[in-house]
Amino acid sequence: MNTWMRLMANDGSIVFGRIENGYLHEYEGLDQPVPTGAVLSLRTLTPLAPCAPGKVIALWNNFHALAAKLEKPVPAHPLFLLKPAESVIGSGEPILRPAHYAGKIAFEGELGIVIGKRCRNVSVEEAEASIFGYTIVNDVTAAGVLNENPHFPQWCRAKGFDTFCCIGPTIISGFDWNSARVVTRLDGVERQNYPIADMVFTPAQQVSLISQDLTLEPGDVIACGTSLGVGSIGDGATVEITIDGIGTLSNTLAATRAGTQAVAAVVGAA
Amino acid sequence: MNTWMRLMANDGSIVFGRIENGYLHEYEGLDQPVPTGAVLSLRTLTPLAPCAPGKVIALWNNFHALAAKLEKPVPAHPLFLLKPAESVIGSGEPILRPAHYAGKIAFEGELGIVIGKRCRNVSVEEAEASIFGYTIVNDVTAAGVLNENPHFPQWCRAKGFDTFCCIGPTIISGFDWNSARVVTRLDGVERQNYPIADMVFTPAQQVSLISQDLTLEPGDVIACGTSLGVGSIGDGATVEITIDGIGTLSNTLAATRAGTQAVAAVVGAA
Repeated sequence: MNTWMRLMANDGSIVFGRIENGYLHEYEGLDQPVPTGAVLSLRTLTPLAPCAPGKVIALWNNFHALAAKLEKPVPAHPLFLLKPAESVIGSGEPILRPAHYAGKIAFEGELGIVIGKRCRNVSVEEAEASIFGYTIVNDVTAAGVLNENPHFPQWCRAKGFDTFCCIGPTIISGFDWNSARVVTRLDGVERQNYPIADMVFTPAQQVSLISQDLTLEPGDVIACGTSLGVGSIGDGATVEITIDGIGTLSNTLAATRAGTQAVAAVVGAA
Repeated sequence: MNTWMRLMANDGSIVFGRIENGYLHEYEGLDQPVPTGAVLSLRTLTPLAPCAPGKVIALWNNFHALAAKLEKPVPAHPLFLLKPAESVIGSGEPILRPAHYAGKIAFEGELGIVIGKRCRNVSVEEAEASIFGYTIVNDVTAAGVLNENPHFPQWCRAKGFDTFCCIGPTIISGFDWNSARVVTRLDGVERQNYPIADMVFTPAQQVSLISQDLTLEPGDVIACGTSLGVGSIGDGATVEITIDGIGTLSNTLAATRAGTQAVAAVVGAA
């Protein structure tokens, strides 16, 4: 197992590498990463989302317990939507309420798969070897947008707003997801605590099946879907999602809105 | 009005620029593009999709005539899904049937908006100034996948397969979409012929409203939705979509499937 992070230096440059004893050993590339020789103290660096996905594939109905509660049959193929690259933020960054939306915003604590190699029509065995590692995802949803139009469920829009895909804090390569749990706390109160082994499609099955549809690129993330305990985030509330061995992903829903002025204020305060 | 293309040179390098009298005048950037001084003969270059979008936003139900035929009210906000970057191909490239799918594959001829400047929370006036130009999109759909699961309409998967977003052949800046028509021919037989002015949301309205949701980046494409006459493409059939002033986007549904061997064969034959 190795711990990987992506961080910003004081000069605005972005570094990626392996973490050891408080230092980042810089690497280039996710497909057979190569050390650059640079070693940087973490104290001088600001954490970012641990990868920069071109796309995030978010699964729906991938846990037996949630399927049973919703009285839906488990699917025969992964059911997914796409979240855009611009929706991604790292741990500690604020979730911004869309400027024209006053409704419910929900959290979903999930395991995230980080792709290491380009995958197209890969077998389950090849898929396993194509996974760089695992991270944590908060698949944020503007619940009121989802079914606002009775003729077209707006999955991409409801889950695709800027800042609605929290990823981090680290990527763990060689992580044993099978014995891990996802624990989500809202302002310190436990709301989700489910075993990842309850998944319908395992990570390697997801990568293999999705790669029959569309090409997965290094850095792309698959959010594996959530289970019981999803709930609403009040303005100013903090969602902490912990997977032992990966860490804790923490994000607060900003009390201000995501209009131009609100975004400027948030950026100015950072 | 200027004509812009993106092409591949014999050495595999990609060039973008303005077309004049059979020559490409190379430019860098879409936001205030700067000429590099290079001038290349088009005869030595292979056309590609005219931009490389990070994401494609595809609208549903954006034409009054189709809404009336489907007996759906016109929406209050653009209804959209996302197509991944990897689904994009240019004019002349083959559409590949997914390896495990034998069902209906549909064409949709559409106007495409190419974004020139980063847009976040922009007004309609700012949106107008952020549009680099216009192109043509064939928003290909695996119709049988869309409602395969009764609990989750698979918009992203049905429209997101590799090669399912044909874009091209050119981008026209300063194009007067308001007086243009989209004409789609299937193996030479006219199947769609509709006025773009019948749109529910104009291009600038689409860019402004979508930018309230998610940040649009230079090169991103909005497929403006289709109107009457959508139909099925048989294996080996060719779809030609013409918008006078932009050109003709032509793509054939390959007779072979998109399995590893089929892809290798198609690449090998190119």
